[in-house]
Amino acid sequence: LVGAGAVGATYGSRLHAPERDQHVAVVCRSNYDAVHANGFHITSPVFGTWTWRPAAVFASLEAAAQASAGAGAAAAAPPPRPWDYIIIATKATTDEAAQAALLSALAPLVSDETHLVLMQNGVGIEQPFRNAFPVVPIISVVTRISAAQTAAGVIRHHRWTSLSMGPFMGRAHAPETPPERNTHMAAVRLAAMLHAGGVPDATVHDAVELQQLRWHKLAINAAFNPLTILCGGVPSAVMAADPRMAASVHAVMDEILGFIPHRFGRRLPAAMKTPEQILRNTRRNPGAKPSMLQDWEAGRPIELEAIVGAPLREARRWGYPMPRLELIYAMLALQDARRSRAA
Amino acid sequence: LVGAGAVGATYGSRLHAPERDQHVAVVCRSNYDAVHANGFHITSPVFGTWTWRPAAVFASLEAAAQASAGAGAAAAAPPPRPWDYIIIATKATTDEAAQAALLSALAPLVSDETHLVLMQNGVGIEQPFRNAFPVVPIISVVTRISAAQTAAGVIRHHRWTSLSMGPFMGRAHAPETPPERNTHMAAVRLAAMLHAGGVPDATVHDAVELQQLRWHKLAINAAFNPLTILCGGVPSAVMAADPRMAASVHAVMDEILGFIPHRFGRRLPAAMKTPEQILRNTRRNPGAKPSMLQDWEAGRPIELEAIVGAPLREARRWGYPMPRLELIYAMLALQDARRSRAA
Repeated sequence: LVGAGAVGATYGSRLHAPERDQHVAVVCRSNYDAVHANGFHITSPVFGTWTWRPAAVFASLEAAAQASAGAGAAAAAPPPRPWDYIIIATKATTDEAAQAALLSALAPLVSDETHLVLMQNGVGIEQPFRNAFPVVPIISVVTRISAAQTAAGVIRHHRWTSLSMGPFMGRAHAPETPPERNTHMAAVRLAAMLHAGGVPDATVHDAVELQQLRWHKLAINAAFNPLTILCGGVPSAVMAADPRMAASVHAVMDEILGFIPHRFGRRLPAAMKTPEQILRNTRRNPGAKPSMLQDWEAGRPIELEAIVGAPLREARRWGYPMPRLELIYAMLALQDARRSRAA
Repeated sequence: LVGAGAVGATYGSRLHAPERDQHVAVVCRSNYDAVHANGFHITSPVFGTWTWRPAAVFASLEAAAQASAGAGAAAAAPPPRPWDYIIIATKATTDEAAQAALLSALAPLVSDETHLVLMQNGVGIEQPFRNAFPVVPIISVVTRISAAQTAAGVIRHHRWTSLSMGPFMGRAHAPETPPERNTHMAAVRLAAMLHAGGVPDATVHDAVELQQLRWHKLAINAAFNPLTILCGGVPSAVMAADPRMAASVHAVMDEILGFIPHRFGRRLPAAMKTPEQILRNTRRNPGAKPSMLQDWEAGRPIELEAIVGAPLREARRWGYPMPRLELIYAMLALQDARRSRAA
């Protein structure tokens, strides 16, 4: 598990089951010291409250690679063996240097038996991994969970646990890409482990449907998250309760949801929530503060490209207009650039 | 002259010409003490630097009414006679109580010889005056001027002086409305006085064309002014220089400019600036800070309804979509309401 924030740690803890010979090691960055010393303290309305000690805690991918090679492993670590699944749960970034560093640090850990599991927001996030690892099976994951790391290693899970998984094949469906069916079976095995770990609905989808679900989640994030910043730190629930703003949020979601059948030639699965349902659920969750707003307020980089820039570029390639999202992007990108220069 | 801010005082000072028997009295509010004691200190690249002492300075419309009735006039005031033109140069407001107070305080000053001159931003600003004074000629004025009051009574005129005038007839063209031709001639007389006062291009238009010009100016204000606030106090020139933001500003202007022929059944006069020209001019004026941003930063009410709310409602009545402006309105109205509640 690379990137043990609130989302990654919650799901990683459900996969860790030594009694079933499932061992989860984590790569931590800012929370390494705390997690290495004390593990994760997790509070959840579904899973209860407990301390999770991963099979191993590494400060970097490089340290994990050394341990995999048999050197300097933590005392509690399992004997070196190939990594079956590598879950990437870091923030989605389009910073090319950061991305290149991640991909090259990842390479020594990837074997013939490895599956990459990408548990990240946004669209277009898989392609850099596909480019770097043309023959490695990639499982794309869309999560629906409300959780926060309130202090290093302290995870509070608020609501929801469901996630959707499916193969990612790559834009070109290049001949060297692993067959979709094999990746699908790997996703089914991973879902079974999550079910055994108590996650009630981990579902598996085909490659196209998974992308549709990814865009559906994006419609929610792209409509709410940047606006919470642009409106000066207003919680999502306040926007959803303001009739005029709710209408605009609805219209932004419509821009993105309308693109999905245009882009994929298939309607969304009928069970997907409508904008009305999403707005209603949002009004019921008054404390919710999107991670993008949390990142903005803390002065951290925001997932603007994965959540707004990339879908806009994809829509433009398909000749599909998203006027409201274009305006939102222009406003936030301008402020983000000015903030970066000031920092 | 009611509301002697930067715009009103600059033009008022050009109309004041005792040698031609033109006397301008002013109603000041926040700047009364300074102006009553010292007049206006005006600096202009066109008119030079000088101190202007109006014919009379009143602290309120009520005080002006008493003086008109012959009581308590300032020593330098002309003998009471009917007001020929009453220029309203206050901020446009849709606060109903403030509007009702203005209209009822105005009533005692309005005679058979009076013309109302509305020198305000936004659209729909004339109708409340028409409703309150069904038979009084109303001259609607669109100004293009960059000026600021840097301290009470201290006016700095930066750029531009042109203005456009024309009759306002009222939505219903009710039978009691004064004939357009009479109001037009009163506007021609007012323009001649401005020319004599050195204002190079004060132009007179018919009622429809004047509304088109009002909407054209609105397209600029509605695109730039709210966005300077929503982008965290970014000057207009910075937005115009950012290609992505410039494209969105252009698109907002297009929404409004496209509505004008739809609404008035007539194309815009060919001399009107295009969005490209407006963006180019804006880039050349790096210091420019819209009055709406100045008001926002000073914690004063903003002209949101006149500049954004009213045109949106008018467009909706005509079935004309303005998706970007709707989003801008939702974002700023939400923040404005939260700010008002916090104050």
